[in-house]
Amino acid sequence: MEISFITGVAGFIGSNLADRLLREGKQVVGWDNFATGQENFLVEALKNPRFKLIRGDNLDLAALTQAMAGCDFVFHLAANADVRFGLEHPGKDLQQNTIATFNVLEAMRANGIRRIAFSSTGSVYGEAETIPTPETCAFPVQTSLYSSSKVAGEGLISSYCEGYKFEGYIFRFVSILGERYTHGHIFDFYKQLLEHPDHLKVLGDGTQRKSYLYVGDCLDAVLHVIGRGEARAAKHNTAIFNLGTDKYVQVKDSIGYICRELGLSPRLEFSGGNRGWVGDNPFIFLDTQRVRATGWKPALTIEQGIVSTLKWLRANRWVYEQRS
Amino acid sequence: MEISFITGVAGFIGSNLADRLLREGKQVVGWDNFATGQENFLVEALKNPRFKLIRGDNLDLAALTQAMAGCDFVFHLAANADVRFGLEHPGKDLQQNTIATFNVLEAMRANGIRRIAFSSTGSVYGEAETIPTPETCAFPVQTSLYSSSKVAGEGLISSYCEGYKFEGYIFRFVSILGERYTHGHIFDFYKQLLEHPDHLKVLGDGTQRKSYLYVGDCLDAVLHVIGRGEARAAKHNTAIFNLGTDKYVQVKDSIGYICRELGLSPRLEFSGGNRGWVGDNPFIFLDTQRVRATGWKPALTIEQGIVSTLKWLRANRWVYEQRS
Repeated sequence: MEISFITGVAGFIGSNLADRLLREGKQVVGWDNFATGQENFLVEALKNPRFKLIRGDNLDLAALTQAMAGCDFVFHLAANADVRFGLEHPGKDLQQNTIATFNVLEAMRANGIRRIAFSSTGSVYGEAETIPTPETCAFPVQTSLYSSSKVAGEGLISSYCEGYKFEGYIFRFVSILGERYTHGHIFDFYKQLLEHPDHLKVLGDGTQRKSYLYVGDCLDAVLHVIGRGEARAAKHNTAIFNLGTDKYVQVKDSIGYICRELGLSPRLEFSGGNRGWVGDNPFIFLDTQRVRATGWKPALTIEQGIVSTLKWLRANRWVYEQRS
Repeated sequence: MEISFITGVAGFIGSNLADRLLREGKQVVGWDNFATGQENFLVEALKNPRFKLIRGDNLDLAALTQAMAGCDFVFHLAANADVRFGLEHPGKDLQQNTIATFNVLEAMRANGIRRIAFSSTGSVYGEAETIPTPETCAFPVQTSLYSSSKVAGEGLISSYCEGYKFEGYIFRFVSILGERYTHGHIFDFYKQLLEHPDHLKVLGDGTQRKSYLYVGDCLDAVLHVIGRGEARAAKHNTAIFNLGTDKYVQVKDSIGYICRELGLSPRLEFSGGNRGWVGDNPFIFLDTQRVRATGWKPALTIEQGIVSTLKWLRANRWVYEQRS
């Protein structure tokens, strides 16, 4: 039976993927350094005899290589996701995204594993002039250390695909939400409203547009595309797919959904401007025609995704304590 | 007076740049680890009191930071230029290009230096579908570890420009030739003809097209663009320019120029196929309208550039002994 290796298995998307593969009867080796991963996310997986958890860091190439032995497919999801504070520690994205991805590829090469899926980001498009942005838009100028490190990771993967005949699946995600979502607008807004239900501080002017995708739909797309072997048909053995919905909302819309769900009417305090922080992109909205052409489409609307996220956060308030 | 810092000062382009800036009366601090740099290239510069040479490696951040103290502008030219054998040592491009560029930027930040020029490459366009290829062509898929590492370097620089208000000049070069050129087709062909003037082994089928630029023209363009402060007018403080001529030659054309110059008629032995090695791009031909719009144009034709290169190689055969 095929054994999947998941880096960042204790993260939001990684733990959902592990549960999903285990439900499908697959075998999973999970890898995490638990810097931001949550043991609680693996409670179900750890009960399953087809799941094996190995603690380790992507920067420890020897341990990573050993952990990966015997696996057939690598889902490389581990990353520094602390996008917003990149300028405070510029080496972090380089280490945890660029160099980590190199180590994952080297560990695969040492083990004779050639198939990899990678969680990239729609922020690789920088401030795209074409919106919705297709995979083939104009060569973007990178404006954040995070997106630069993801572009670097993509380049390493496609070079291994070309040079060592790897099979690479690169997914450029919009913001993902759903069960176990623990960072981003909705997480922060609900946290604030738990502390002070009467008012809400909002970075920017609330008009920032975001095109969220529900984690279940995201994983459907990833597994669907891999199942079709799209990389084997792609140039340079590298399949690149935007993942998102064909809709977007403004930050103030998502505040509306949240307040309705919670039955609150907080006073909104906007910090002003059209971006939350330096390097924040005011609008990431991806053209998803390429992935839709494979037969996938999302099941949940953005509003449904936001509501399901909020329901999960309400039932799992411990995540706020873990991170404080 | 403005002090320029040059990484890779003992290299082909670095040493020509040092001589050029010194001739213009500027002050230059040169930095090189002499892994591939040639002391001989600095014979003239070292006679000049306005030149200071510091030996060191870009991976030694502390030494690099110290060396850069007091400088105003950084020309970051040091790189692993061993493009062809990337697959034999996949960590080399990551170390010497990506991480080295990060260190250069960190050393600048520590010293309060914000202006940088970077030697990138036309190979960042991968196998471009638009030829000649403009800076704004479709988002390319990287096919070599070398080009991936240059894209990573570009992304780091533009992110520092956006985030720390650096001023960045990114130049995507075609193959550069001229005095002190020590790798590439012409270098290899002349080496072979010194050893066996009666025959010449050619990788590929000789139809690979190459658009060379003469090093003097390259430096003219670099200094012209910087002198105009193009980065300050560019989005994200990052000026990106293709550098090349608007012509190209086939490898067999350049063999013709070389043989005519040498008065030889070797038997040509083609290895076949349309590329020299895995990841080799069959055709890099850049659209240079953007740099031409600034008022620059090359002085030498490709044929003149090849002939001047060959004259220099004939007068400096020691370079072959140094590298053997």
